[in-house]
Amino acid sequence: MKSNICVIGAGSWGTALSISLAKKGHNINLWMRREEQWLKMQETRENIKYLPGVLLPDNIKLHHNIHKALENADVILLTVSSQGVRQTICQAKASIGNHQIIVNAAKGLENATLLRISEVVSQELPQNPYAVLSGPSHAEEVCRDMPTTLVVASHKKSTAEYVQDIFISPKLRVYTNPDVIGVELGGALKNVIALGAGISDGLGFGDNAKAALMTRGIREIARLGQVMGADIATFAGLSGIGDLIVTCTSMHSRNRRCGIQIGQGKKLEEATQSIGMVVEGVVTTKVAYELSKKYNVEMPITAEIYKILYENKDVKEAVVNLMMRSRTHEMEEIVANKHIEW
Amino acid sequence: MKSNICVIGAGSWGTALSISLAKKGHNINLWMRREEQWLKMQETRENIKYLPGVLLPDNIKLHHNIHKALENADVILLTVSSQGVRQTICQAKASIGNHQIIVNAAKGLENATLLRISEVVSQELPQNPYAVLSGPSHAEEVCRDMPTTLVVASHKKSTAEYVQDIFISPKLRVYTNPDVIGVELGGALKNVIALGAGISDGLGFGDNAKAALMTRGIREIARLGQVMGADIATFAGLSGIGDLIVTCTSMHSRNRRCGIQIGQGKKLEEATQSIGMVVEGVVTTKVAYELSKKYNVEMPITAEIYKILYENKDVKEAVVNLMMRSRTHEMEEIVANKHIEW
Repeated sequence: MKSNICVIGAGSWGTALSISLAKKGHNINLWMRREEQWLKMQETRENIKYLPGVLLPDNIKLHHNIHKALENADVILLTVSSQGVRQTICQAKASIGNHQIIVNAAKGLENATLLRISEVVSQELPQNPYAVLSGPSHAEEVCRDMPTTLVVASHKKSTAEYVQDIFISPKLRVYTNPDVIGVELGGALKNVIALGAGISDGLGFGDNAKAALMTRGIREIARLGQVMGADIATFAGLSGIGDLIVTCTSMHSRNRRCGIQIGQGKKLEEATQSIGMVVEGVVTTKVAYELSKKYNVEMPITAEIYKILYENKDVKEAVVNLMMRSRTHEMEEIVANKHIEW
Repeated sequence: MKSNICVIGAGSWGTALSISLAKKGHNINLWMRREEQWLKMQETRENIKYLPGVLLPDNIKLHHNIHKALENADVILLTVSSQGVRQTICQAKASIGNHQIIVNAAKGLENATLLRISEVVSQELPQNPYAVLSGPSHAEEVCRDMPTTLVVASHKKSTAEYVQDIFISPKLRVYTNPDVIGVELGGALKNVIALGAGISDGLGFGDNAKAALMTRGIREIARLGQVMGADIATFAGLSGIGDLIVTCTSMHSRNRRCGIQIGQGKKLEEATQSIGMVVEGVVTTKVAYELSKKYNVEMPITAEIYKILYENKDVKEAVVNLMMRSRTHEMEEIVANKHIEW
């Protein structure tokens, strides 16, 4: 099956997915907003800024006009930053037909509305079939054909399976999941914990402390997720703990790298500037903090990271706070759920 | 509360815990089997082989006679390798009273019997209060006061809380958990997955592949655990996914380092010899494989690692097998449990 795929956004992830899809023989129209990048990439056939050293296959066509890029597309793959999704759709809308499948690969939440990206897309394109693509997948490895797993979630099974067929390859294993909310929240909220993991690393704490932070991190993500309608099992899967692990432990993660710099004493602005790409976790921390208040869910890690980023809280004090929490049972829920006379 | 604690075994973990306990003011008798090590450590007050650069506090007394070491002990902390537990207890038994609390810190299963260590101890010392100590905790960090979390599990709440009080400090947070089976299985079985993570690294696969392996790894551990009577929630906690993360991602892990060498093409014997310490995961793989057959639980990662270690299966073929499994839904259980017409 060869499809026409329009990839919106040529950051590292959009470029890596374009390369992977092109190698399968699909026809790719890769659209980018910045004219300068478009001119440069046409000349070099390489994304020098985000994925240096990897050449683009010939069946990737580069576009700066979004309407031309969308012509004849079977699938529209969104890889712009979460805050840019709505605006990009509005810009493209006139050239999008109802039948075209929208696949979102951005891992974040809309700041202004606290909405998940599927909700943003459904407001703007209520008729289109929709799927979200997530999972533990650094672009730097995907574009080099290193073995990777992805998750595609859709409310409609046939859509999920169609998108699965589009992406799957011997090196890129794609799994379907019906839980759109859980897959979206896992992908977005793990970036908050990755900032925290980076801060812990930047403070010089070790692997023991970071593993504890990650363990509690996925639990608070799952707590919020469950209240918001997700299936708790999703957080134990590839787009939950899997993506959290890859983001908190790899130097490919910009969220973690940003956290390291903050842990070392840099201001947020300095840290994000030095990364040079969108650090989704910074905005997501704010949205997650607001969601935790809206849904009245305890999210201690998110709260401390919020205070570090937005209220100038001392990083060391914040992390010590997290370590010193007064819980004594590892999992109150075990004892509580079972009414054990323990 | 100052207690008399006899630490059995002076490997890296026994030494690190002795140092941590001694700093809290407890009186520590640290026993070691090898006379040579005993003479050397008395001279240097340092565990040069396993924890170089960290001096022993004065309130650690070094022993080579196990009966002297056990005199007046309130708590007996076992840190020998899992295969050595039964023999060590038999050797010490004559000097152990019924009131003394046994705390086991070894993370493995008994090869000959497929028993958990709590079952071994209960056969040999049926009267003694018992707790297991686990969690994401590399010795190299604990002995240097780097923030760490531990889990202590006991069937008896008062025992768990007593042991918690013994160990807890500002840098070492200790949580209690009633699920002895889950805590023991998590600590033991994660070493199998860590071997696999190392093999993946040794083959040159990336962070994406390793995160996928770890995600599936904790799931197969939990599957077996549930059948064996553990609480599934434990595997989402510090002694489950937490310990798995720290073991699969840190260079402190000898199981992972052993796996890396196997992935690079070394024979098992060469790899374990070069580590120079017991690699618990090698025996645990065999026991886990047999348990999966005994309880009829699907454990594909364990099975492939078993074939690599014990049946000379080609490592690359084994890992490709794992990647290529024919599953298409990420979590069949989500769909199955809910009977979703999806």
